[in-house]
Amino acid sequence: MENYQEIINELRKNVLEANLNLVKYGLVILTWGNVSEIDKSRKYVAIKPSGVPYSKMVLDDIVVTDLEGNVIVGNLKPSSDLQTHLEIYKKYPNVSGICHTHSKWATIFSQANRSIKVLGTTHSDYFSKDVETTRLLTELEVKSNYEKNTGKVILEKIGENNPLDCPAILVAGHAPFTFGHDALNSVENALVLENVAEMAYYTLELNSDVVFPKYVLDCHYNRKHGKNAYYGQKTSK
Amino acid sequence: MENYQEIINELRKNVLEANLNLVKYGLVILTWGNVSEIDKSRKYVAIKPSGVPYSKMVLDDIVVTDLEGNVIVGNLKPSSDLQTHLEIYKKYPNVSGICHTHSKWATIFSQANRSIKVLGTTHSDYFSKDVETTRLLTELEVKSNYEKNTGKVILEKIGENNPLDCPAILVAGHAPFTFGHDALNSVENALVLENVAEMAYYTLELNSDVVFPKYVLDCHYNRKHGKNAYYGQKTSK
Amino acid sequence: MENYQEIINELRKNVLEANLNLVKYGLVILTWGNVSEIDKSRKYVAIKPSGVPYSKMVLDDIVVTDLEGNVIVGNLKPSSDLQTHLEIYKKYPNVSGICHTHSKWATIFSQANRSIKVLGTTHSDYFSKDVETTRLLTELEVKSNYEKNTGKVILEKIGENNPLDCPAILVAGHAPFTFGHDALNSVENALVLENVAEMAYYTLELNSDVVFPKYVLDCHYNRKHGKNAYYGQKTSK
Amino acid sequence: MENYQEIINELRKNVLEANLNLVKYGLVILTWGNVSEIDKSRKYVAIKPSGVPYSKMVLDDIVVTDLEGNVIVGNLKPSSDLQTHLEIYKKYPNVSGICHTHSKWATIFSQANRSIKVLGTTHSDYFSKDVETTRLLTELEVKSNYEKNTGKVILEKIGENNPLDCPAILVAGHAPFTFGHDALNSVENALVLENVAEMAYYTLELNSDVVFPKYVLDCHYNRKHGKNAYYGQKTSK
Repeated sequence: MENYQEIINELRKNVLEANLNLVKYGLVILTWGNVSEIDKSRKYVAIKPSGVPYSKMVLDDIVVTDLEGNVIVGNLKPSSDLQTHLEIYKKYPNVSGICHTHSKWATIFSQANRSIKVLGTTHSDYFSKDVETTRLLTELEVKSNYEKNTGKVILEKIGENNPLDCPAILVAGHAPFTFGHDALNSVENALVLENVAEMAYYTLELNSDVVFPKYVLDCHYNRKHGKNAYYGQKTSK
Repeated sequence: MENYQEIINELRKNVLEANLNLVKYGLVILTWGNVSEIDKSRKYVAIKPSGVPYSKMVLDDIVVTDLEGNVIVGNLKPSSDLQTHLEIYKKYPNVSGICHTHSKWATIFSQANRSIKVLGTTHSDYFSKDVETTRLLTELEVKSNYEKNTGKVILEKIGENNPLDCPAILVAGHAPFTFGHDALNSVENALVLENVAEMAYYTLELNSDVVFPKYVLDCHYNRKHGKNAYYGQKTSK
Repeated sequence: MENYQEIINELRKNVLEANLNLVKYGLVILTWGNVSEIDKSRKYVAIKPSGVPYSKMVLDDIVVTDLEGNVIVGNLKPSSDLQTHLEIYKKYPNVSGICHTHSKWATIFSQANRSIKVLGTTHSDYFSKDVETTRLLTELEVKSNYEKNTGKVILEKIGENNPLDCPAILVAGHAPFTFGHDALNSVENALVLENVAEMAYYTLELNSDVVFPKYVLDCHYNRKHGKNAYYGQKTSK
Repeated sequence: MENYQEIINELRKNVLEANLNLVKYGLVILTWGNVSEIDKSRKYVAIKPSGVPYSKMVLDDIVVTDLEGNVIVGNLKPSSDLQTHLEIYKKYPNVSGICHTHSKWATIFSQANRSIKVLGTTHSDYFSKDVETTRLLTELEVKSNYEKNTGKVILEKIGENNPLDCPAILVAGHAPFTFGHDALNSVENALVLENVAEMAYYTLELNSDVVFPKYVLDCHYNRKHGKNAYYGQKTSK
């Protein structure tokens, strides 16, 4: 029982900090964006409340739900994008944090229905391939259960790939979702995505024919994420 | 009589806070921009004084006028754009706050005489259609009563539509005006407009043929503003 | 004698504040940029010292020279651009403040050898016409007395016009100089120039054929600067 | 012996301050970027530890190695880019500080495999010619000793030129390295590079045919760096 309380507190604390990082990193304005985290037993999901300003958000505002979206803890309504998060958690057991923003450059690529191509080592340090865009939802999908179906087109695009190998996806006409091994990590990936997207845009403006070799991509991705990764300190994740 | 004083104080307080938000949101430099609010009886309009720096602006600097522009409260001259605000208040009874800035991207679209097309869900969350540009004023309109005629071309463009359904308009060769149910809300719409304008610019640079379906626009607009809106908390507006 | 000391102190104080505004407004990095002011008798010119970081600059660092550039007060060397400032002061008796920066957008237009066209009311509020670019200096002009000759090509471009009607000029391949009725005013004009330049760039990217009518330009310029100006408070300049 | 301790302390202090300047100047996010300095005897190299956040970095985190990369002082792993720094120190005895970032504009030019052309006096004040891009590493070079070979392609490009005459190089598909007479100076050059790169991009967008005369380049470079330099105070470097 005490254990349950600790899990809930830890989840809420992580999700509050991760949501506040959205502001710190300049990834959101007003009440835009939302971050969630799922506990190890994958029973409890903590997420930002809907439409609450970041400057006033406190621990008790963070909503905890089950995997069907029923509120377990908290007095506020969860983010209206909750069902999108839940679809992703249900499908991919190694995703434990999800971040959704309307950050400028990632949203521009989403709206333009364009992938963010791998064009350098910055991209390669975090994403093992191009960051792809989903298809647009059909009218039926939008009208029946919009947020759940947003999750469905994300799942359709990722398929059986490991979402943590390339922890970002762009929803066409909408904006990015990023993934992580926890909430903070998903926000970090959102920050990197934003920078990578902007640099990709201008790189192609400068030289639309540029080619970035796959062997450099693999080298950079693996020195941070591969079996023999040597970037960072042993104690760091 | 006490009631009158309370109304005036409340108006001035709201208008001061809203004007200071222009600085906080990075929508103005120097003394640019001005925000106003009209009270429920639609007799009193509070507005920023002309040419006073934001860093020194205090409650007593906020000017209160009647709907003809006669100063009722305050020792300073009202914003030189007052007459534009008054035209809008007189025509549209549900507009209770108006914000005028020269914010970068909205001004760029105004100067270029281009509408801001709906290209994604960020736009759809606040504006039910393209944000349109007025025609240029004629030489006669400029020389006779410039600020009042600026209001006239705004009214000409909005016509009998509800300005709060798409609470922004671009004055050709000039800059944006945004509307709200109060002063703060009109500034929030100015901030959103600025972000939406920039993203629209780069989206079309990336993919000039992109199409955003009307059924996604309607879904997003209505989940925040429709009869069955489910975004935000019940207590929030 | 006391009067002399007051004049010098006042000049140094104004010039220090104006130079620090360059940092506050984001117009300079490192030790770039310099602002000067000349006193009413037009005998004393205070200017930023050469190569001193803004974060450490104090009143006693500000150098005062005569119109030939001889140091009268101060232990440091004046800005290496001093001779350019002096040429302008000697030619135009109503210019009492000069500001030189390498601010991003004004420098881009200078490097591209392009004028900043009047495209909207923001430009019109401060500059009565296009902001023009000088010719490049010849090799001889660069090698003989570079800074003085930079002043000469500025004078050549302005000619007998009043520099305060359009208080900015772009030196080709270099960067902008702005003018004012004092040092602070010249920095304000540098800030406006930077914003106007950026908006002009993107306006023409969006619509290269756009035309801004001269009658709107004149109206806006004159409501702030004409004989019957009505912008701002009576006590403001 | 005491002398040794002083050298090590001084190196670590300089390298910590220089790394923190990366954050202050907006040149890095997260743990990106790394700065190093070599002592006068050219035996000890202090460098940022790998993957440690700037906000928590303290003096004792700075790693000191010898020229082969063996850790002499410190409990953390040095930056994974250490071997690139060492190659440069071993070849060029007048380079005593090296800075590596993924700053936006310099990285864009690196990714696009484009040089940053001299287009104005801002560039000329710091770099005596175009900032060039290395070739891409071969697959073999990437797979055998990636970081050391990154150093090799830098050396291949600089050749027998003095790296301090044009203290920046772009690694193709990767990002910039800048040089200095100490760590702080290499960071200052990284900041200038970033500004110069952005202005070069937009200058060519505005006027792709613009020509900047070599005689202005030489004049500006020499007034700061030549034998008869007259920019700055006598006491400053």
